[in-house]
Amino acid sequence: MKIPNFADIRAAKARISSFVNSTPLLTNKTINELSGAEIHFKCENFQKVGAFKFRGACNSVFALDDQSASKGVATHSSGNHAQALALAAKMRGIPATIVMPNNSPQVKKDAVAGYGAEIVFCEPTLEARESTLDKVIAEKGHTFIHPYDNYNVICGQGTAAMEILEEAHDFDAVIAPVGGGGLLSGTAIATKCINPSIKVYAAEPEGADDAYRSFKAGEIIPSVKPNTICDGLLTSLGKLNFEIISKNVDEIFTANDDEIKSAMRLVWERMKIIIEPSSAVPLAVVLKNKELFAGQKIAIIISGGNVDLGKLVF
Amino acid sequence: MKIPNFADIRAAKARISSFVNSTPLLTNKTINELSGAEIHFKCENFQKVGAFKFRGACNSVFALDDQSASKGVATHSSGNHAQALALAAKMRGIPATIVMPNNSPQVKKDAVAGYGAEIVFCEPTLEARESTLDKVIAEKGHTFIHPYDNYNVICGQGTAAMEILEEAHDFDAVIAPVGGGGLLSGTAIATKCINPSIKVYAAEPEGADDAYRSFKAGEIIPSVKPNTICDGLLTSLGKLNFEIISKNVDEIFTANDDEIKSAMRLVWERMKIIIEPSSAVPLAVVLKNKELFAGQKIAIIISGGNVDLGKLVF
Repeated sequence: MKIPNFADIRAAKARISSFVNSTPLLTNKTINELSGAEIHFKCENFQKVGAFKFRGACNSVFALDDQSASKGVATHSSGNHAQALALAAKMRGIPATIVMPNNSPQVKKDAVAGYGAEIVFCEPTLEARESTLDKVIAEKGHTFIHPYDNYNVICGQGTAAMEILEEAHDFDAVIAPVGGGGLLSGTAIATKCINPSIKVYAAEPEGADDAYRSFKAGEIIPSVKPNTICDGLLTSLGKLNFEIISKNVDEIFTANDDEIKSAMRLVWERMKIIIEPSSAVPLAVVLKNKELFAGQKIAIIISGGNVDLGKLVF
Repeated sequence: MKIPNFADIRAAKARISSFVNSTPLLTNKTINELSGAEIHFKCENFQKVGAFKFRGACNSVFALDDQSASKGVATHSSGNHAQALALAAKMRGIPATIVMPNNSPQVKKDAVAGYGAEIVFCEPTLEARESTLDKVIAEKGHTFIHPYDNYNVICGQGTAAMEILEEAHDFDAVIAPVGGGGLLSGTAIATKCINPSIKVYAAEPEGADDAYRSFKAGEIIPSVKPNTICDGLLTSLGKLNFEIISKNVDEIFTANDDEIKSAMRLVWERMKIIIEPSSAVPLAVVLKNKELFAGQKIAIIISGGNVDLGKLVF
């Protein structure tokens, strides 16, 4: 298994920098006082399509050679990766096909269609997703861009941490949420290559703690019947992601949904920014482990801001 | 009636610059496409206490000579000005007393008390507010800082427009919401002094259109039984504010609550920032009058981001 290195992430940054938003690092005095730490929030909720996912999708699309690119890209996703890949393909002017479960919310279908991608619906099972995708690829010659278990996707996601560490080198820790592990693995490689003394931590909901258990067990333990408000963190770790995480991540912490809701509300109320539940897990973890993080300078990656305003958890 | 001039606003900026946040100007591609204009949002929702009001309160408190300051400040308000004055007084280390109606929401009482101000409750009538405030001032020798009909408050509010025009001179128009007129009058003076060719527009809810009617009539018409979701824009214009507005504002536009809600939702969903209903009126006005603003470069002042997340209007 080929592991991305820092040169790959640097190349990704050069490749995508004219397409992605260079998002701000924000701080908040009240949250610093409450936590006893100095927290810098990397606002990927301000990224295109409202989530860090655009970085990886964009890098994957623009890393293709012209011939492969002209044949288009495909993925199965009903979430942020679907929109991200659709927009990246649109920017390169190539076709994209997204396999989506037929019970996906209308707002997500509309968003993907709005970026000009073709949607192929399937039954809402993993098996149907994969077989439908295989069929699409066989027919159209598309390149499959996996949402997280993909070399170029991981490199793209690592550019968020690169941007953080270009603004300041002296962080004690960087914390990212973990679902499939795309953001976390990219973050870990970028951070450890720039400064190995910076700790890389992951934050995961208790109701979907397969990454925590996998990390402790030393092998991938699949996510079975996850139960959490963090709709972006339900999947199992990818193989390449697990390989990177087990070597480069210092610790995985968990928080329960009440702690996550409370951290999310704190960010909305005090910072006046909209973050999705998955993005609140790192802050929940810091507030839960104050003695551990006291006095530290910490970067937290806010993964995205895509919430259904009609179904708020407050 | 002494009208503030540009030197006063410049002095205000120098006085408060180490205490206020220099807030960002944000743009959004989708909103530009929808409106046909190039809109730059001045994010006073990221200001201290979550609203532009801190600028005026801060300028008023720090403009006092030492002797007056030592005797403290007072106001009557249940909104953002109350918190703003309480925080400004705390920063200068002087006493503050806030007269609040006894039916104010607990969260607002807590916020004011949290900044160390003394709260004196009164019956929820204008008469009780004023008589209670008079009593407080007579007893304590406090200086009364009116929420908007106040020279130094107006100068402080004008610093937001100064910051905008320091970033770029070439705006076609600046638009601010109007309630009592503190923000609008400060914005008008600052803008017209820097570049008289920039239009200054106000945006007001139809359900509280007293400023629109006053502007057209040439005299202050009081706000009677206003009915709008814009809880920050219910009051009548102040005298000094009206004097400034009638000479320096080019036009006042109105929008109804449905248009305001829809503009607010657009900002939340697309920009991932939290703005209060009052802040959405200028965008509602631009979207309602597309032909008028087409192709223009417009600055909109987002007045604040203080919303009760338990009572959302979506």
